[in-house]
Amino acid sequence: MGQTLAEQILSRAAGRPVSAGENIVARVDLAMMHDSISPSIIKILHQELGAEQVWDRDRVAVVVDHVAPAATIQNAEHQLALRRWVRQQQITHFFDVGRGISHPVLVEEGLARPGMLILGSDSHSTAYGAVGAFGAGMGSTDMALALATGQTWLRVPETVRILARGRFRPGVGAKDLGLRVARLIGADGATYQSVEWHGVEELSVGERMTLATLSIEIGGKAGIIPPTGPGWEEHAARRGIIAPSWLCVEEGARYSRTVEVDLDTLEPQISVPHFVDNVRDLSELGRVEVDVVYIGTCTNGHANDMAAAARILKGRKVARGVRLLVVPASSEALQQATADGTLATLLEAGAAIGTPGCGACIGRHMGVLAPGEVCLFTGNRNFRGRMGSPEAQIYLASPEVAAATAVLGYIAHPAEVMR
Amino acid sequence: MGQTLAEQILSRAAGRPVSAGENIVARVDLAMMHDSISPSIIKILHQELGAEQVWDRDRVAVVVDHVAPAATIQNAEHQLALRRWVRQQQITHFFDVGRGISHPVLVEEGLARPGMLILGSDSHSTAYGAVGAFGAGMGSTDMALALATGQTWLRVPETVRILARGRFRPGVGAKDLGLRVARLIGADGATYQSVEWHGVEELSVGERMTLATLSIEIGGKAGIIPPTGPGWEEHAARRGIIAPSWLCVEEGARYSRTVEVDLDTLEPQISVPHFVDNVRDLSELGRVEVDVVYIGTCTNGHANDMAAAARILKGRKVARGVRLLVVPASSEALQQATADGTLATLLEAGAAIGTPGCGACIGRHMGVLAPGEVCLFTGNRNFRGRMGSPEAQIYLASPEVAAATAVLGYIAHPAEVMR
Repeated sequence: MGQTLAEQILSRAAGRPVSAGENIVARVDLAMMHDSISPSIIKILHQELGAEQVWDRDRVAVVVDHVAPAATIQNAEHQLALRRWVRQQQITHFFDVGRGISHPVLVEEGLARPGMLILGSDSHSTAYGAVGAFGAGMGSTDMALALATGQTWLRVPETVRILARGRFRPGVGAKDLGLRVARLIGADGATYQSVEWHGVEELSVGERMTLATLSIEIGGKAGIIPPTGPGWEEHAARRGIIAPSWLCVEEGARYSRTVEVDLDTLEPQISVPHFVDNVRDLSELGRVEVDVVYIGTCTNGHANDMAAAARILKGRKVARGVRLLVVPASSEALQQATADGTLATLLEAGAAIGTPGCGACIGRHMGVLAPGEVCLFTGNRNFRGRMGSPEAQIYLASPEVAAATAVLGYIAHPAEVMR
Repeated sequence: MGQTLAEQILSRAAGRPVSAGENIVARVDLAMMHDSISPSIIKILHQELGAEQVWDRDRVAVVVDHVAPAATIQNAEHQLALRRWVRQQQITHFFDVGRGISHPVLVEEGLARPGMLILGSDSHSTAYGAVGAFGAGMGSTDMALALATGQTWLRVPETVRILARGRFRPGVGAKDLGLRVARLIGADGATYQSVEWHGVEELSVGERMTLATLSIEIGGKAGIIPPTGPGWEEHAARRGIIAPSWLCVEEGARYSRTVEVDLDTLEPQISVPHFVDNVRDLSELGRVEVDVVYIGTCTNGHANDMAAAARILKGRKVARGVRLLVVPASSEALQQATADGTLATLLEAGAAIGTPGCGACIGRHMGVLAPGEVCLFTGNRNFRGRMGSPEAQIYLASPEVAAATAVLGYIAHPAEVMR
């Protein structure tokens, strides 16, 4: 009788073998807190829970990413208060404006590792599944409790297994797989379940984060990619990380459901306003002209995403009347893009670069949309009003589709540009 | 009896020889309008003046730079309306989000050239003096009148001559000269005068723009650097621009005043809160610790400015507890910095990069300051509340001082780092 990856990780965190459906108290390996939620977390921690110190200053990571650099005096005040708190608490891992989005940053810094239980104040904290961790987003009260005690209470989730078969065709990738799954099972298809992604061994950690972050968009409590395969090995070798031997896909693990996706026939998937699971094949979309193409976020703002876009934009120009915004997910991704020529290609094509971080993903600065504007977005949510005006239209797609769309001015298959 | 540069340019624009003190009607060579003022200009143009079209769609340049990318839905709406107006008016020269600050952009594009009369909706439109143009900032009504008629009314200004002698010492440059002059003659020392900068032939066009933009900070109507010398020749050769033969420093031109500055003894100048002309020698400043170092703006966000900062930051790190924000003045400056290794150096040191444009210079996004924060700023204004909270402190200095300050955490001479 095997365990799912979630059961394995939570068994270790609980200090005893646990299985789906059990309520457990688990030890938290890492707690991540970001700028915009921090005021309420800190208030609950000290005023409501009466805790003077976080339970372990080495196991708390604080990141200024949501509105970074500050766009208003209020943002600036919150961030200043957060910096003072970080100093007062002697938090070891603090990443200020410009370092990037919490999730890739903690992966790059080697803080997020396989087998960990990681709680984050951001809903896309499922991201840590990219490196085989159980990552879950939590609200202020749960975060404050974890910061005070180093523990959390949760029910061990059932697991949905996603089984990808075959190989991606050119111009098709992880984002299309993620959106395809959203289309197949819906936004509530994995509610409070762990989403385990199989058959994606080739994918890099950046691409795995695309899948891990999209896991919350189908309701997942966590989204985990097994830390095996060439994509993982490259990351592990570069960062000097070894996955724990107890963490592996086990025969006989029980899945609530298995969803199969045939990559051989998968074409680019487009999520149409105003829901992530409102997905169509690109070929059935019709002509959709856009005002803005936005490449970024923890879902698709990684070095590999920018490089994929640059391969299509190389020697081409952004269409007249279209803005291309590129907001790297992290400073390391931007450094990589600077070093390998990706940034030069993007700038030459006419892209505007933003400070590494969450950018306009939450509509609070750096590319807010006006009423009536249409945006092709590589992010993870296209809810009404997400990026600014509720009268704007957001389509979700891959960086490759984004690049082709920037060149042509309408949502397009990369092959339309590359042929 | 010679003419000042301002008199020469305005004589040509008026179609007859004119001299200081005369009220004239002059032909406008180029009118620049930017995002945040455009709604009121467009309204006056059409509704109050009843003009249907701008006088010459090839002589109007529109730039989205002040809050770019949009930080609020209102910004986004104004920018959308501006884009529609640009299309409807068939404006030839439109530069959208990410291209950069109007002033360097129009210079880079070869639209701003020697001998021109250029009006801009931004107060730092004196910037065009960097290429030997008479550039002046104007309010909405004057801009709308110029757009409607291609003409403007003005009084030919007197001219203050700044005469720099000697050579800059290491770590001292154009910004220090500009601030020194502000210190010598005060914020109203050249009110409604043309400021003519002599003895700066060696300076690049980027460095000349530092002087030209600071000219408004001493009250100047314009600030003109003669288009001669090695710094000019390099620009002229690269852009294929020839200065008109009628434009030259003439013997016997009448200056209201000559202000001499001895570069040989000039040390870094620091403008202390909350006025630009509240300037001290760095050596008399005492220890001032900073929270933020901000390199950018039309005054000091050029490729040469970033490169100067990078020379000091090379192999060094931004001090713990200090944020270094670098916002390139234009996409071309960013491309240059990407190509020559400057950007890689800045990122390696720990800088956060912002979208080319005005950034936080006007406190509306991209690094707004919190109450109590201290900022070392390479920009042109340190007025109370300029970059956010009125309780923040802004010190103005050169990019070299900015870089040294970022490394040490307190306002410092570059030699403190480089020795």
